[in-house]
Amino acid sequence: MRAFCDRSEPRAFTRLASMNKLLAIDWGSTSMRTALLDEAGTVLDERSAPRGMLTIAPGGFGEVFEQQVGDWMDEPGTHCLMAGMVGSKQGWVEAPYCACPAGLDEIAASLKVVDAHAAKRGHRIAIVPGVSCERDGVPDVMRGEETQVFGALDLLGVDAGVFVLPGTHSKWVTVEGGRIRELCTVMSGEFYELLRKHSILSRSLPPADADVAHDDAAFERGVRAALSGGSLLQTAFSVRTLALFGRMSAEALVSYLSGLVIGEELRCRPLPRGAKVVVVGAPALARRFERALGLAGVASVLLGDEAAWRGLHVIHARARALYPEA
Amino acid sequence: MRAFCDRSEPRAFTRLASMNKLLAIDWGSTSMRTALLDEAGTVLDERSAPRGMLTIAPGGFGEVFEQQVGDWMDEPGTHCLMAGMVGSKQGWVEAPYCACPAGLDEIAASLKVVDAHAAKRGHRIAIVPGVSCERDGVPDVMRGEETQVFGALDLLGVDAGVFVLPGTHSKWVTVEGGRIRELCTVMSGEFYELLRKHSILSRSLPPADADVAHDDAAFERGVRAALSGGSLLQTAFSVRTLALFGRMSAEALVSYLSGLVIGEELRCRPLPRGAKVVVVGAPALARRFERALGLAGVASVLLGDEAAWRGLHVIHARARALYPEA
Repeated sequence: MRAFCDRSEPRAFTRLASMNKLLAIDWGSTSMRTALLDEAGTVLDERSAPRGMLTIAPGGFGEVFEQQVGDWMDEPGTHCLMAGMVGSKQGWVEAPYCACPAGLDEIAASLKVVDAHAAKRGHRIAIVPGVSCERDGVPDVMRGEETQVFGALDLLGVDAGVFVLPGTHSKWVTVEGGRIRELCTVMSGEFYELLRKHSILSRSLPPADADVAHDDAAFERGVRAALSGGSLLQTAFSVRTLALFGRMSAEALVSYLSGLVIGEELRCRPLPRGAKVVVVGAPALARRFERALGLAGVASVLLGDEAAWRGLHVIHARARALYPEA
Repeated sequence: MRAFCDRSEPRAFTRLASMNKLLAIDWGSTSMRTALLDEAGTVLDERSAPRGMLTIAPGGFGEVFEQQVGDWMDEPGTHCLMAGMVGSKQGWVEAPYCACPAGLDEIAASLKVVDAHAAKRGHRIAIVPGVSCERDGVPDVMRGEETQVFGALDLLGVDAGVFVLPGTHSKWVTVEGGRIRELCTVMSGEFYELLRKHSILSRSLPPADADVAHDDAAFERGVRAALSGGSLLQTAFSVRTLALFGRMSAEALVSYLSGLVIGEELRCRPLPRGAKVVVVGAPALARRFERALGLAGVASVLLGDEAAWRGLHVIHARARALYPEA
């Protein structure tokens, strides 16, 4: 690794680099979250827009980028690093998956540069690759979550652990020696939505758009039922029968169903004993996982948005260290 | 049990009973299947119509009955016995659940008579109650399947066994000493439909209404993946990644998904070792279960529509024996 700043013989790069800001973007399927970071990774400003990949026509990414954060790129020397579905086949530029085991070096070596033509005004923009692994002959993949995991490692000052990033498709990530060893996708968020909105169970629940308060006791009952059950295929029917026999209110059943699904997710994962699971996600959902993990006898640490920004910061720093001429 | 026919002192009932036919109806949520049976339970005629409970407005059952099978009831002495959702709260007349353990005696004692006003022209019509059980404080229920199970027992000449009735909501039924001891609902058919039509996986599959041939190898791969997996929440994502990496065709993935769901159903059930599982259902689906059970190391026997007709026949016979004056 070369010295970052050689004052006896200043070069263009180091002069610029010393005042570089990083425009960090977490660009997923449904939203575009952005932050402007200083050299130390401190968040100077944040913006968010409902301009996820699914809302953008092919070829339209550069324009959305300019609209949303073009002004942040006006300052000379500002780089942009993006993570998430923006690097998928249907994204701005495809950033091929980096295979497990994948550490910061492998990720930094695989950044996909958005070329000057696509990036208007020659902005220096790169995309973090997703990570893939193979288990029993079946591939598994993630995009964006790898960045949050590297951020979480840095924030917690550790180089190993079990991470869960709950969501439509939860990602469970195992890290050893600073490298992602394995990942596993669990479709819990999507199953919950399917059952909540499209299944026969929805007839026993309030309308999907109703504002229903979370019911802790019902949630916990659902988690416990799932943890001791065999499959959501079987436990899910209890939503209907508890309603049919008047054993639980329609409102409480919403939380119960959430507990059944999250409990099922925990049931099917090999949970670490004697170590904390790191939960990275939106606070309300992360707290449900914390509670469910507690019922499964496992402690947890919660992290939020800061993990993504820190992840983009450390990947950017590693890339600059590896490829200072970039 | 009284003698069936006392010729020295004939009574109205026995005279009629001796030439009684039975109109057997399996009236479910989406269809109405009917059969005319003779005294011995032999099927004389069959009809089927897409007039399930969900297609009938409250109060409209009598009319549909008259339209579909009223002529079969014209012959004096003909009784009608119905099973299925027709006995639910939203059905013609509610037939409260019979609690496990439930044998022919308990079922026959709980038939719900459709009164003369509801049954036009004073037809003698009764409904078989569903069966309920309770497991870990959670109720489970079925309607119609109990009748098929009693029919299967009679057809096979046994009084015990494990039965599966695959469908939107598969029912697993354990019988001991001629009585239903336990039932368990597994929402496999509905989960398959949700994933096939409404989930992100549908983007990797042919349109839901496309005519896709069954792919045995892909189906078996799905079953094996589910049997060795932890939860459908996790294995389901492989449909997406196998497509993403070009490892399986969209057509084959339909069968693979079916295998994943049926395999999950078997994974979560305590399968009998050294005994056959009795599969009662439509031939194509029953054969998939037979194949999947085989991969799980369990032999099976398949039965079809005949189980429902035989079940209604034996329940009717038991009711007549118990309540000859009816």
